[in-house]
Order: sequence, then structure tokens, then C-alpha cells
Amino acid sequence: MTNELVVASNRGPVGWSRPDGSELVPSRGAGGLVTAMSDALQRESGTWVSVALDDDDREVAAEHAGGPFDVEAEGARYRLRLLDVGDDFGPYYNEVSNRLLWFTVHELWGAPYEPAGVGWSGDWEAYRSVNRRVAEAVVEEAGRGGPEVLLQDYHLCTAPRLVRDALPDAPLLHYVHTPWTQPSYLQRLPDAMVDAVLRGLLAADVLAFSSPLWCRAFRRCAEDILGAATDGDTVEFEDHRTVVTDFVLGADQDSLEQTARSDEVAAAGRRLHDELDGRRLVLRVDRTDLSKNILRGLRSFEMLLERHPEHRGAVWHLAQLNPSRQDVPEYRDYLQACVEVAERIRERFGESAVTLSMESDFPRVAAGFRRSDVLLVNPVVDGTNLVAKEGPLLNANDGVLVLSRTAGAADLLGEAALCVNPYDVEQTAEALHAALTMDTGERADRARALREAAGRGSPGDWLYAQRELLRATVARRR
Amino acid sequence: MTNELVVASNRGPVGWSRPDGSELVPSRGAGGLVTAMSDALQRESGTWVSVALDDDDREVAAEHAGGPFDVEAEGARYRLRLLDVGDDFGPYYNEVSNRLLWFTVHELWGAPYEPAGVGWSGDWEAYRSVNRRVAEAVVEEAGRGGPEVLLQDYHLCTAPRLVRDALPDAPLLHYVHTPWTQPSYLQRLPDAMVDAVLRGLLAADVLAFSSPLWCRAFRRCAEDILGAATDGDTVEFEDHRTVVTDFVLGADQDSLEQTARSDEVAAAGRRLHDELDGRRLVLRVDRTDLSKNILRGLRSFEMLLERHPEHRGAVWHLAQLNPSRQDVPEYRDYLQACVEVAERIRERFGESAVTLSMESDFPRVAAGFRRSDVLLVNPVVDGTNLVAKEGPLLNANDGVLVLSRTAGAADLLGEAALCVNPYDVEQTAEALHAALTMDTGERADRARALREAAGRGSPGDWLYAQRELLRATVARRR
Repeated sequence: MTNELVVASNRGPVGWSRPDGSELVPSRGAGGLVTAMSDALQRESGTWVSVALDDDDREVAAEHAGGPFDVEAEGARYRLRLLDVGDDFGPYYNEVSNRLLWFTVHELWGAPYEPAGVGWSGDWEAYRSVNRRVAEAVVEEAGRGGPEVLLQDYHLCTAPRLVRDALPDAPLLHYVHTPWTQPSYLQRLPDAMVDAVLRGLLAADVLAFSSPLWCRAFRRCAEDILGAATDGDTVEFEDHRTVVTDFVLGADQDSLEQTARSDEVAAAGRRLHDELDGRRLVLRVDRTDLSKNILRGLRSFEMLLERHPEHRGAVWHLAQLNPSRQDVPEYRDYLQACVEVAERIRERFGESAVTLSMESDFPRVAAGFRRSDVLLVNPVVDGTNLVAKEGPLLNANDGVLVLSRTAGAADLLGEAALCVNPYDVEQTAEALHAALTMDTGERADRARALREAAGRGSPGDWLYAQRELLRATVARRR
Repeated sequence: MTNELVVASNRGPVGWSRPDGSELVPSRGAGGLVTAMSDALQRESGTWVSVALDDDDREVAAEHAGGPFDVEAEGARYRLRLLDVGDDFGPYYNEVSNRLLWFTVHELWGAPYEPAGVGWSGDWEAYRSVNRRVAEAVVEEAGRGGPEVLLQDYHLCTAPRLVRDALPDAPLLHYVHTPWTQPSYLQRLPDAMVDAVLRGLLAADVLAFSSPLWCRAFRRCAEDILGAATDGDTVEFEDHRTVVTDFVLGADQDSLEQTARSDEVAAAGRRLHDELDGRRLVLRVDRTDLSKNILRGLRSFEMLLERHPEHRGAVWHLAQLNPSRQDVPEYRDYLQACVEVAERIRERFGESAVTLSMESDFPRVAAGFRRSDVLLVNPVVDGTNLVAKEGPLLNANDGVLVLSRTAGAADLLGEAALCVNPYDVEQTAEALHAALTMDTGERADRARALREAAGRGSPGDWLYAQRELLRATVARRR
């Protein structure tokens, strides 16, 4: 069999669980990436290579001895390869991917102390080893047919170079879903890591990000650190050209709207209506990641009530939070700091002024999106931010979006939203006030523009545009 | 009287104290800036405008009602204006200058929490007000003669625009002694502040930094944030051209060598010899600033002893620290963290392995410079770093310099030093090992090259070069 497509990512499209306690049952993951690739893989032959993330994954990987296997999940058929990377998983995933790389591209470090700068060599060796395993599987699956190779995200930065070395002619695209950072900030990481990450990604024909901001930052890294030459979107390094550009990955609108029409969402909407009790709703929906800026969001709401007493008792701030990485001390401390500010707000302005809800409850989130008067999306920095798109798509209340200008989504939504500097609590408080006091005509105009922009870049369009550019780029190379 | 030169800086060239408890006695400050300007002001007529920093300054300012006065200190004569800025001083100096601007250009913030983003408007108003006071005094002193106006540093970022508005033809130079940062990092500050700082500095004819790194960062800020056009060194914004370039301000070699020949330094050298007791000396000399990276320096020394047991008992790490800003909690906590690592090193490798000395003791510092086998200068980032120059100039032991590549001084000294990524403890430990095991021929070659490079940019040359460029730039403008 000849593959037309080989996809590789840290997390695969299928997960396994034991709903009745005995047999492992596959189920499809959510999100635009899975939707886009799954649709393509129903029409074309291809393999999806991913890393085993938990014991259930590892059990499935062992059944197939790390080789390819077919599986069907919720009507979609896949050929998968699932790689058990053993003891390398912890340092690859927790230390290098989610700590060193994540904190760096989101510029989260507190420079005097972090990163501590010790233990890097061993962790980095594990990351390279996992990337090597993934690249080997990709090369095996690619075979001799010369399929398109689509690699995903910051977990696999060194893999493209290894694939390129084995398959010099392969059409190779790498999509980075996170932000990128400035040269001097990237260079806080060890030299060998920075060099390998940049060289790795520059082995692709197309290197894609979710915003022009991150493309520009990456091109500057290539120039300043590697001495690469840039010409418009193109980076030339060691006789190879890489087009570095952005593709919008929007919300999965069809599945979103289908879910939103469910009875559960209607019931959640009625409960929310009772809780609101005539008040207006300022909503936020986030994983409790350090990059999401929940703390300054709460302080902004506090300052809103402080400066504009007319909103006291008339507005409810609901923060629907999905606890994330609570095994990492910084994440626990951060959530605790948020809880303390929320308590202070309740002491100052009444018990019902603010609610931090820590349960993953999609019907309530969808009902909130539908009903909210203001949606607050203020990450310190974000690759794109899907909440900023899903909210306006479901909203039926001409809700206003207050949005960080440093979220990748601001490139599309910035004109229709009220944009803020996420570090500026005062400015954010005033944006909330402006949103709550905006006249109905402007609200309606902005809501219409938000919906239009948020609907762009369906998963299918996203993938189609990337593959078109990949083919054109490879045709020029040849 | 017509001035040929007007200088303005936060701290003036003269301080006052009461050595015998009664009368205020003036004394000259130290440093290259004071040396350079003082020499010029003995030959040319001019005024130095500065801010009253303490009660003694304020008393002197009141005596002259904020107007100009003449004073003689240690053989140099000055015409000064000392401005008592009242309650604006705290927010201008502590909050905006030393916190918001200093932390930002040194990229020290821990993004999830800092800066908190509250209380900015009032502090910023005070900063602008002090800059207005300074600019007004500069304009008064400039009179109608059209003298050269030389403004200094990050305390006075908005003053150049005010001077320019009043004196459209004035030859205007601003020197920034700190590093500069990338656009996205600068934009963590409030929009109004960023805008005013950039526009303020771009009112100068020449904007000078201490390293090409900071010039490039500034030019990118002007491009990305203001949409200014750049062409080589020149930034064009609103029909005005500013040359943004770097000038090396080296050590004040003459006065340094004179002090080093004193009996006190000789005595300190004998005491150091006894303390060393045949061991080799790894020295660091720093203010305890968060940017100086003392903590990772200590961890690097710890890792050196861990990985290379041959240095245990054979090397002494002396950190000669000058406590700085200990009224700021972050600075106290940081120093405490350093003390704890030093204690751990002593527990692991013996009581005499490391000494943190917290006294300001220049004879001991000079004796250390003279004697050290390795000088460790590893700031996370630094405008230039004078220790990296003074050390090699005084060293008589073919000492090796281990230097952060992100210190401005690395531009000149980088080839002769062993350069490190200041975040990389492992790399720094290995650089210390390489320095301690370097053969004598290479040590001598590098020491010679260090001395040659460290001697460049005498205060007089530094000022001369700036004024030459200023005149040429103004001639082109006219």
C-alpha cells in the first residue's frame, strides 16, 4: 500500500478507555486538527504517527509491537502507529515540551530564577530520542511513494530534519500551534537546543504558524541566530528554502453548533438564567494555564467594580476554568492566587459578584457563550485562542469580545473586538466598562463582524490551504 | 553667559554630606560619565541639570531656589541646577524608572504575576512631570546660544521631545546606559508609556546605546510599534531623523590604576593571599541586582565542584557583593536565595569553598581583580558591565574572563573571554572548568587581548566621539 499522507503529532486522533472496566474501547479526540486530518484520511490513504501518552495507549502500542494498525472510532477509520517511548516520555513531555519550550515561546519565565538551568542535557537527549523514534516511523510509513508529510507542533521540532535527511525529496510541512518568541528570548534555552530546534524546523518546505506575529518572530530567530537569509516569507538556510507563513485554524463550527442545540445546553442555559437573576454576564473560559492571565483578568473585574460602582450587583463574572497541569507547583500556586483574588472580590463586593467554576462542563460553557454580554479573553500570549472564536459563533446576545492583542486570534478578530494590552489591568478594566456600556447598535455591528471573522478557517479549509502551498513550494524546489 | 554644553541626568556630578556634622560639603561622584563630562565642563561653559536625590541635595536645591549655582568639588568647577521634584520623586524614581523601565529593559518580569498592572497612571504622571521639570531647566540653560544638549539614561526618556518642542534646532543627544528590549517585551508596559518613551527618545538627533545589540532592539521597537522607517543606523519618524548607534564607555583607566597602586590595595592583597592559602581564586564583583545572575553563578560553581572533584579544596569562590535596593522585597528575597545556595555549597564542599562578602570594600575588590585566576561576569543582561573591563585592566595573573554574551561588553571582549549563555548553568560550570585548566600560553594571549579591548573607550574618547557624530548629524539636518 502506498500512503498519500503521513501525519505525526504528540497526541494521536484516537484515545482508549475502558467504559465497562474490561475492554479498551477507542474514541475520537476533539479539536480542529483531528477534524481536518480525519476528513482527509477518510478520502486518502495515510498513517497517523503519535506517541503513547498513558498506560492505555501503551497497552495498545504493545499489542501492535509499535507497528501500524487499523482502528475505527466513531465512524472514522484510521491507520495508526503508536510509539511507546518508555522512560524518555517524562523528560520529553513534561520537562522539554511543556516546560522549557512552552514557557519560552509564551515568555513566562521569571528571569532571576527560572529556568534554573540545570539538568538540561539529559532531558534534551530524551526529547531528541523521541523525535528520532517519530521520524523513523514517519520515514517507514512514507515508503517510496513520496507522500506529503505533515508534522505537528512544539513536541516535534527536531523531527523534520531527520525526515528530510532520510527523504530528501519529501514534501514536508510543519505546523506550530503555539506562539513563537523573539531571538533574545529563545536564546535563554541552551545553545544546542536552540540550534537544533531552528535547524529542525527549517528542514520543512512549509513552516506554518497561526498568526503573522509568530512567523515574523521565527524569521528573526532564523536571521539573528542562524544567520539565515530571509526574503519576504521565505527563509533560505544551507541551500534549502522554507516558506514561513500563517494559516488560520478556526473553530469546528458544524460540530460546535450541533452540540449547542442539545438538550443539555438548553438545560444549562435555564440554570444560568436563574443564577444571573437579571444581572449581566462577563464570562471567561480557560484552561488554568499560566499563559491565560486569569489573575489579571480577575483584578480587572475588581477594578471595574471599584471605579464604576454602577456595575456592582448588576454584573456577574463567571470564570469557567478547566484545571490544567495541577501536578506542576507553579500551576497550583497560580490557581491558588486566583482563588484568593476572587475571595477578596466577594468580600468587597458581595458573595455573588464572581464565581470560579473548576469543572469541565461543556453544556454550561456553551450556554455561557450563548448568553454572555462580555467574553473576556486576555492571555499574556496565545498561539491563536479558540475560545475567542467559539464564543462569538455561539453568542446570541450581541456579546462584546474583550481580547488580548497578543492572542494570535487578534489578527482576524482584532477590529471587531475591544483589544487590550494583557498586562494593563487598568486598560482591561476600562475595556470591560466600555463593553458593558456600549450602545446596542455598535454591539450588533461588532457581533456581526466577530461572527464573520470567527467562522473563517474551517478545519477543512485550513488543511486544504496548507497542502496547496506545500505542493506549489515543492514544485518550485524541483 | 552663553552655554556651550547642557548636560542633564538623574544623578548629578556632585553629592553633599556633612563630614563633621555641621556644614554640607560637596564631593565629586565616581564613574565614566562624571569623568567625561567634568573634563569637558572645565574647558567649556555649561550647566549640569540633575534631580535632588536626598535631603542634603534638597537642602542645597532650596538654597538656590532651583536656579543655577557654581560649586567646586575636588578641583573641578561646575555650574549646576538641582531640582527638588517633591512628592513626584518616589513614583518617578522607584516605581517607573527602577521598577517598570529597569525590569522591562532587563527582561526580568515573571509574566504570570508581574508587573501587576495596577497604579500605573499616577506613577507615570509623576515621571512625566519630573521629565518636564528637567526639560524646562535644560531649555532655560540652553538660552539662545544653541549649545549641545546631552541627556542621560532611562530616567529621562520623555525629556528629549520636550526640549525639541521648545528648541527645534538644538543639537540633541540622548545616551541610554541600560540595555534595550524587543518590541513585544517593551509592549508589556502601558501603551501610553511605550509610545511616549519611543517618541521622546526619537526627538534626539543622536540616540546612543552601549552595544549594537541594544541599538538593533530599539530600531525594531521604532519600526514595529511606531511604524517608523529605518535605513541602516537611521530611524525616520514624523519627518525627523535620529541616528541610533553605540559608543563604548570603557573604564576610567587612569583613576583606576592610581587607586590600585595605593597602600590599602597592597594590604588587601596580602590579606587575600593569606585567605587563598595556595588555592586559586574565582572572583565575582557585583551589585546585588536581580539582573546580575548571582544565583546561577553560585550554582555553576557548585556544579563545577560536583563534576570536577579536582577543584574541591583547590579553588575559592569569592563573591564580593554590594547590597542594592534592599528596601525592595524582590531584592531581599533574591539575596536570601543566594545566601542559601552558598550555605549548601559550604555544607557539601567545605566551609571555605565559597565566601559571599557584603561589604563595599574597594581595596579588596581591586586586590581581587589583580589576583583572580577567573573573573565570573554572568549577568542575564547588562547595558555594558564595567567589572568585565576593570577586572582585566588590573589583573596581573593572566586571569580568564567568563562573560555573559548578553552583557553589552561582550561586543568588545567576547573573543578574548569565554562567553556563556547566562541561563545555562551547565555551560557556565564547564566554562569555569575550561578557564581553570587552560594552558598558560592561551591564558596569556587572552589576557593581553582582554586588556587591549578593555582599555578602549576612555571617558574622554567616549564623549568626543558622540559630540563629533552629533555635529555631523545636525549639519546634515540643516
